[in-house]
Amino acid sequence: MRKVAVVGIGMTPFGELWDMSLRSLGIEAGLNAMVDAGLSSDEIDALYVGNMSSGRFLGQEHIAAMISDQAGFTRRNLPAIRVEAGEASGALAFREAFLSVAAEIHDVVIVGGAEKMTDVSDAMAQEIFAASVDQEWESFFGATVPSLYAMMARRHMLEYGTTREQMAEVPVNGHRNAAKNPNAHFRNQITVDAVIGSGPVATPLGVLDCAPVSDGASAVVLAPLEIAKRMTDRPVMIAGSGTATDSISLHHRKTLSGIPATTIASRLAYKRSGLSAKHIDIAEVHDNYSISGIMAVEDLGFVPRGQGGPAFQEGRFSADGEIPINLSGGLKAQGQPLGAIGIAQVVEVVRQLRGEGGERQVGNPEVGLTQCVGGTGGTCVVHVLKVV
Amino acid sequence: MRKVAVVGIGMTPFGELWDMSLRSLGIEAGLNAMVDAGLSSDEIDALYVGNMSSGRFLGQEHIAAMISDQAGFTRRNLPAIRVEAGEASGALAFREAFLSVAAEIHDVVIVGGAEKMTDVSDAMAQEIFAASVDQEWESFFGATVPSLYAMMARRHMLEYGTTREQMAEVPVNGHRNAAKNPNAHFRNQITVDAVIGSGPVATPLGVLDCAPVSDGASAVVLAPLEIAKRMTDRPVMIAGSGTATDSISLHHRKTLSGIPATTIASRLAYKRSGLSAKHIDIAEVHDNYSISGIMAVEDLGFVPRGQGGPAFQEGRFSADGEIPINLSGGLKAQGQPLGAIGIAQVVEVVRQLRGEGGERQVGNPEVGLTQCVGGTGGTCVVHVLKVV
Repeated sequence: MRKVAVVGIGMTPFGELWDMSLRSLGIEAGLNAMVDAGLSSDEIDALYVGNMSSGRFLGQEHIAAMISDQAGFTRRNLPAIRVEAGEASGALAFREAFLSVAAEIHDVVIVGGAEKMTDVSDAMAQEIFAASVDQEWESFFGATVPSLYAMMARRHMLEYGTTREQMAEVPVNGHRNAAKNPNAHFRNQITVDAVIGSGPVATPLGVLDCAPVSDGASAVVLAPLEIAKRMTDRPVMIAGSGTATDSISLHHRKTLSGIPATTIASRLAYKRSGLSAKHIDIAEVHDNYSISGIMAVEDLGFVPRGQGGPAFQEGRFSADGEIPINLSGGLKAQGQPLGAIGIAQVVEVVRQLRGEGGERQVGNPEVGLTQCVGGTGGTCVVHVLKVV
Repeated sequence: MRKVAVVGIGMTPFGELWDMSLRSLGIEAGLNAMVDAGLSSDEIDALYVGNMSSGRFLGQEHIAAMISDQAGFTRRNLPAIRVEAGEASGALAFREAFLSVAAEIHDVVIVGGAEKMTDVSDAMAQEIFAASVDQEWESFFGATVPSLYAMMARRHMLEYGTTREQMAEVPVNGHRNAAKNPNAHFRNQITVDAVIGSGPVATPLGVLDCAPVSDGASAVVLAPLEIAKRMTDRPVMIAGSGTATDSISLHHRKTLSGIPATTIASRLAYKRSGLSAKHIDIAEVHDNYSISGIMAVEDLGFVPRGQGGPAFQEGRFSADGEIPINLSGGLKAQGQPLGAIGIAQVVEVVRQLRGEGGERQVGNPEVGLTQCVGGTGGTCVVHVLKVV
């Protein structure tokens, strides 16, 4: 397998974008990535698209071909492949695109993630979210995604003594970072007290523990490293990629206080990159709920199990901490357009590794990690990226 | 790229299967394919799933992980990837799975296609069908998929003098073949007069010109050819694969009397296989409407443009003709569970190439082709399969 690099990154702002359709979002992110790569659409060989539920949000399936058409790729009838894995759709699409270049199926590939979520009611949006957990055994009986994560939070509190205050540090950190991100859905700062006092969604989680419903898109261009070196002075290599599945229903899971698929996917990604948790300089993790951020740093091996809460409280994952986490603001503050998340994580990590983080740049990181979860952990995808 | 073979095939019956859920369908087809390959789930490396719209049919996304779990693959946390491209979802999933083995990403892969369509009303099913064409520019304004194909039929009649009688031969052929297929949704024979006299859906297409709404699943196991040779006496090789995209909206298409994506995808598949239309012994084509069968044989190069109608009328595509088409019964008579179609086509071709077609076996075919279309031609996927 040959080495593969990210040669272009692009995204739209995330938020309630009433004037943008799915196709305009997809095109804007894609064009930004192509401009960043210095490529025209004639130099692209294939398109991968990550999207969770355009069928339900918009009544539109077949969107890889649709975006391919809008981007001008159908002039050359390029292959266009949509990949879906719940909230991990973008991350899994990125992985498929990466593998297709690594395995010499394609040379230059663009992979985009997009979701248009605000054209339906909030109640419908929550119902669509719940399509990534078990419809027959969970959501049909009234379990929402936040209620399932609330159970995981309760279990984590019971097993490890994790406190409400510790959990609240996760969104506080996200909002603090997002304040410096012009693309973020929320740029206001929040406090631990505000999180704890926020309206209950599924106890112990309040509204400020939960990532929002956002519109948005993100895209990256991938090329073989050898070609990438001729295109840019700062190619960022995909050093390792791992994915793992698990039961999509929580009651079949081996544990509730962690996401086993994250642990396994990260082990695979570490192994393939020849690196380990101790080499990670920055990370973008799946903080759809505050408990998710705590489970992530434990599942990824950044801290021993049970130490996620205290570590967040000690600021070890703040912008000036040991491993700055979610410098973009994460799902909580940068926003949560489902299919776009996994690729937006890569966009942020590449931005930081290139030293282009602007106001929120943290030193000279060399290795970054992304972790993206579908449902409550039915799928996890982890990537390790590295400055060449 | 190494050579890849189909080493196992399986499917469920197609039809209105009130007692089967999507997961039970997926498992039945998958188990049949694994039994056929003589493999246990421990010998599989990854799962690909083709499905068009489980989100809207069932409120369930994230189904690759779901089926992976039911199949026992989550014990080993295997990668599970859902691919969607409208009605071509199964065919594109097959292509992604094939490429992953060819490129040595995986060794033994199972790829399944499934759709559970009968849990919604017929009106809703038609609305979901229309999610594969352009929601914003076509279906929102009332265009249904049959009405778009009806326009293509009208145009074909105008340009080439294709007659109503000629079109009717396509479903007549399908039903004739399906009579010998125990898995088929419809096993009754029909006549040209019956098709022409059937209740109008979108003139000139009547109800007997249109493939049904079906439940069903299909699956195949893929392995590197070298391994396949040790597993079976009759490995069937994937000699070539091609995919192409085009505008998903008809009004942006270069022609209405053919599907350009089919022509391009087939040229790619022919080129990669070193074969051409004249080498094809049997084919499974996308006959969702009678006009589609006629366009397919022209777009694939089996007959010159405009000769599809007369050729069907002359019986050149009957079971005893030059190139027997849709020996399974095709979408029209075997049935049309959207995500399952593309893989069911492969199942039938492999069955015939192995000489296991039973009552409907036609001689000793050596090369077979499958052609699967998303929407009205936004995506097409073509495979050429060959006895080793």
